[in-house]
Amino acid sequence: MSQEIQPSAQRIWEHCEALARCSEAPDKLTRIFLSREQRAANELTLGWMREAGMHAGLDAIGNCVGRYEGKQPGLPALLLGSHLDTVRDAGKYDGMLGVVAAIECVHTLNQRGKRLPFAIEVVGFADEEGVRFGATLLGSRALAGTFDPGLLNKTDHDGITMREALSRADLDPARIASAAKKREDVLAYAELHIEQGPVLEAEHLPVGVVTAINGANRFVVEIGGMAGHAGTVPMNLRQDALAAAAECVLAIEKRCGSVPELVGTVGSIEVQPGATNVIPGKAVFTIDIRSPRDAERLAAAADVKVAIQSICERRRVTASIKQSHEGKTATCAPWLMEQIGEAIAAENLPVRQLSSGAGHDGMAIIELTDIGMLFVRCKGGISHNPAEAIMLEDAQISSRVFLRFIENFKPVRSRH
Amino acid sequence: MSQEIQPSAQRIWEHCEALARCSEAPDKLTRIFLSREQRAANELTLGWMREAGMHAGLDAIGNCVGRYEGKQPGLPALLLGSHLDTVRDAGKYDGMLGVVAAIECVHTLNQRGKRLPFAIEVVGFADEEGVRFGATLLGSRALAGTFDPGLLNKTDHDGITMREALSRADLDPARIASAAKKREDVLAYAELHIEQGPVLEAEHLPVGVVTAINGANRFVVEIGGMAGHAGTVPMNLRQDALAAAAECVLAIEKRCGSVPELVGTVGSIEVQPGATNVIPGKAVFTIDIRSPRDAERLAAAADVKVAIQSICERRRVTASIKQSHEGKTATCAPWLMEQIGEAIAAENLPVRQLSSGAGHDGMAIIELTDIGMLFVRCKGGISHNPAEAIMLEDAQISSRVFLRFIENFKPVRSRH
Repeated sequence: MSQEIQPSAQRIWEHCEALARCSEAPDKLTRIFLSREQRAANELTLGWMREAGMHAGLDAIGNCVGRYEGKQPGLPALLLGSHLDTVRDAGKYDGMLGVVAAIECVHTLNQRGKRLPFAIEVVGFADEEGVRFGATLLGSRALAGTFDPGLLNKTDHDGITMREALSRADLDPARIASAAKKREDVLAYAELHIEQGPVLEAEHLPVGVVTAINGANRFVVEIGGMAGHAGTVPMNLRQDALAAAAECVLAIEKRCGSVPELVGTVGSIEVQPGATNVIPGKAVFTIDIRSPRDAERLAAAADVKVAIQSICERRRVTASIKQSHEGKTATCAPWLMEQIGEAIAAENLPVRQLSSGAGHDGMAIIELTDIGMLFVRCKGGISHNPAEAIMLEDAQISSRVFLRFIENFKPVRSRH
Repeated sequence: MSQEIQPSAQRIWEHCEALARCSEAPDKLTRIFLSREQRAANELTLGWMREAGMHAGLDAIGNCVGRYEGKQPGLPALLLGSHLDTVRDAGKYDGMLGVVAAIECVHTLNQRGKRLPFAIEVVGFADEEGVRFGATLLGSRALAGTFDPGLLNKTDHDGITMREALSRADLDPARIASAAKKREDVLAYAELHIEQGPVLEAEHLPVGVVTAINGANRFVVEIGGMAGHAGTVPMNLRQDALAAAAECVLAIEKRCGSVPELVGTVGSIEVQPGATNVIPGKAVFTIDIRSPRDAERLAAAADVKVAIQSICERRRVTASIKQSHEGKTATCAPWLMEQIGEAIAAENLPVRQLSSGAGHDGMAIIELTDIGMLFVRCKGGISHNPAEAIMLEDAQISSRVFLRFIENFKPVRSRH
């Protein structure tokens, strides 16, 4: 063991707990883009960044950005980070652990009085999950300079546009482009994140090197049937939107269950009018399809669309299928995978490579610079769930590995 | 054609239009129990009752009750009526037509200066659909003396108890028992209502005599699975509450579609957490099963429950099935069917008998007195839908038939 100061797992733990208390409900963690809870989480995060010796502030979309200068001011930066927003009824580590661990690594460097031959910027992205506006990666897209201003017209559940929500959060929608980094100022992007899957736990490994972030398609499907009285319309004359949707749900499950590593999910459904004694006249549901192989994902998405149209035609109901998101597989840069692997090996751990079933900010950041990711074991592979859990010792090991990677980072201008 | 004054179809039409404007939303008709909209509808209804020569007021549960005395004051009464509440996004005639037509019949008698050897009481029931508190027939149960005071603790969507809602509507929850009629004061109950089904239209008949109101079972099913990340949990390891619910929806549709006149409906479904990228951990849906034959209904309900348990066991999710309502088939009294049939024949129309797939207030009133119903043709059999429609001439014919039945009514104390 090195005699040098090391990252504090205890502080990482406490900071994750503190962020988990910034929630719209006291009994479950939900923190969406531009909410009051997010403002509280930002204040904590910016404070920790400053304690770690960084200059810190919000950028134009509300990302927390902290900068730790290198041996001289103004050097290009290694970007580190993850996201600060959550799904509804979320766990405490998805996103937050990566932000907190990156700050802790900088804090350790600062305690050691150490400056590197490059700057470090830690980013706490304002939106990755896309819960509020149904569009994901808003923070990382803004940073990568790929934010589509058309998204500003999207509305949340209460009909508030993103433009208005930004203004209410004291952010200027007209200035979002200013959040974009210049390519020449950035060396690479590295993210520490819980695996959100069962592989590392099954192999008794605390960490792993990510090879790629699986691509994904998302759709919103609206089925239009005919509302009617639940007691009087004979079964054979019905145009029941929910029955059609149910058949679609099962078709998606079957198609996506037929190929290894392919997954398909209907995460939300709403029916109208939604009364016990009325046949549903309308059903709206979402689809999320992912695979580490783009061709298999696209084939599944195409088959699912055909299946939905066929089911709805047979049932004499209408189907509108709109794609709300498409992200192709984001491959991690081999040179970053190698340096992350070297840091793992230096901690006397096996170097396990694995792909990510979940999406991450790297999917957007790859448009700006090369990406690499370090996965941390989580309990039961459970995520997007309050039962999400990590072990304190894994917070320790993973932050040591991450710091070792940062200290030994050698930029290679491979692609960008 | 008789030279006597007849009911005005025009006025019936206008009164239905006026009631339809008492809605919680300007663009669709929704008027639930004890709402501000219902208060407005009550004021209209009580006004029309008084114009028709009745003494009128609200009873303890908020039913509009108008009394037209017979040849001498205090005679037992023939009860007429229907309900004034609606489903969400409702039509203009389900319930309202029966209240308005009954008032118009009394209005006609009053214009003729005619008193009958019995009193008439017209009731506009405050709740039949059960939208607000998930319990139906509240108004008619109170009138029949079968209102369960335990229902006062039921809460609406906003957590307001029925007790509180009554108080807010200036009604005294402690006095509900006072709404009950005494058996000796009541001769029979007759209701005019749109068919809400396609039979009369298919046979080109404006009216029909109801033989029975089909029995119904309603259930609330809660499926408990395991929420998880939509990208990382392999399909074969999921415990997806919505996929299980979808299979249940199709099992219900298949079972209830296998027997003529049996119907089964899943009218509402909600999933949690309800995000695009999270596997649903919980799904709650309703079931409504009806049949004109009690044995077939009960067999279907039993089979559906077994099917749900079996689906959920196979999928390793939990299922809780709670019955929220059971109503056995309510058979119309043959002597009332005969007198209604005579009134139809006297208008030179064929006497068609048919059962009611929809529930009606008679299901509760049958505990108090014998019941009879006159069905009116509606367009396409559509109901519980803004497309619900009748023809002006059917408003005319049906109200003439109903008035003829009333004028010639001969009480027979058969059962009660």
